[in-house]
Amino acid sequence: MAIKTLKDLFIHDLSDVYSAEKQITRALPKMARAAEDPKLVEAFNTHLEETQGQIDRLDRLVEATPEVRIKRMKCHALEGLVEEAVEIIEGVEKGPVRDAGLIGAAQKVEHYEIATYGTLRAMAERLGYTEAVKLLEETLQEEKTTDEKLTVIAESQQPEQK
Amino acid sequence: MAIKTLKDLFIHDLSDVYSAEKQITRALPKMARAAEDPKLVEAFNTHLEETQGQIDRLDRLVEATPEVRIKRMKCHALEGLVEEAVEIIEGVEKGPVRDAGLIGAAQKVEHYEIATYGTLRAMAERLGYTEAVKLLEETLQEEKTTDEKLTVIAESQQPEQK
Repeated sequence: MAIKTLKDLFIHDLSDVYSAEKQITRALPKMARAAEDPKLVEAFNTHLEETQGQIDRLDRLVEATPEVRIKRMKCHALEGLVEEAVEIIEGVEKGPVRDAGLIGAAQKVEHYEIATYGTLRAMAERLGYTEAVKLLEETLQEEKTTDEKLTVIAESQQPEQK
Repeated sequence: MAIKTLKDLFIHDLSDVYSAEKQITRALPKMARAAEDPKLVEAFNTHLEETQGQIDRLDRLVEATPEVRIKRMKCHALEGLVEEAVEIIEGVEKGPVRDAGLIGAAQKVEHYEIATYGTLRAMAERLGYTEAVKLLEETLQEEKTTDEKLTVIAESQQPEQK
């Protein structure tokens, strides 16, 4: 797609994160099955529901913002991030070390989304898309909460796993 | 590489971020040349120097932690993130819209590093690598500062670029 205006860039980034969220809904069930710690399994399952809610929120954003349509595209960065999670699942036996690796991989995904939704919200403000700002802010806060929850789980794991 | 222990996972993630930093030193000069806003050009050039310092810090970490050696590997997630920056450079003419896109792409890279260094620092603590904890914390704070600096530049750009 040709990007000439800030609106074009907003549509590009929105379409990118839409693809990212779709990829995340496919990755999370695999991560939940691969995890051992019940708290981590639950966190992945909860985040799957949240991610589905975030996709609905993107659909509502598009409905509320007639200037904006989502284009079909593939988020390549998320492909790389999911590949890292798959490497952990394939390369590490089920147990606390794999869980630590899965938490790390999931936090990279969360931070990808925190950066993306932060940028989108700032652009929506500049473009005067009031309803979009509200919806993007809601998702941004959810992603930050998920990241913090994963930090708490990481810190609760057994120390000194040499 | 086979990952069986937390130390193996630490070495894996450390090697991954080493590859990421090397890729960033190659991407930043291109991003600086592609940017228009002098503040953004300067931020990319400053971060290039910092990134070189962060690579030195990783070398010092390895010297200070005899249990740890960096392995040759390629960080695929960073490849995807750099690809996003290249798409912006190739798809958008020089000017404020490209600058906004470059800031977004750079903030995704920063957040990738914030997540990675946060995970590495937590693992170093569990493994009792005291000097590594100190060095990883220094870099983590630098990455957070760079991210905030990019937000300030984004907010200083002209409003309403429809």
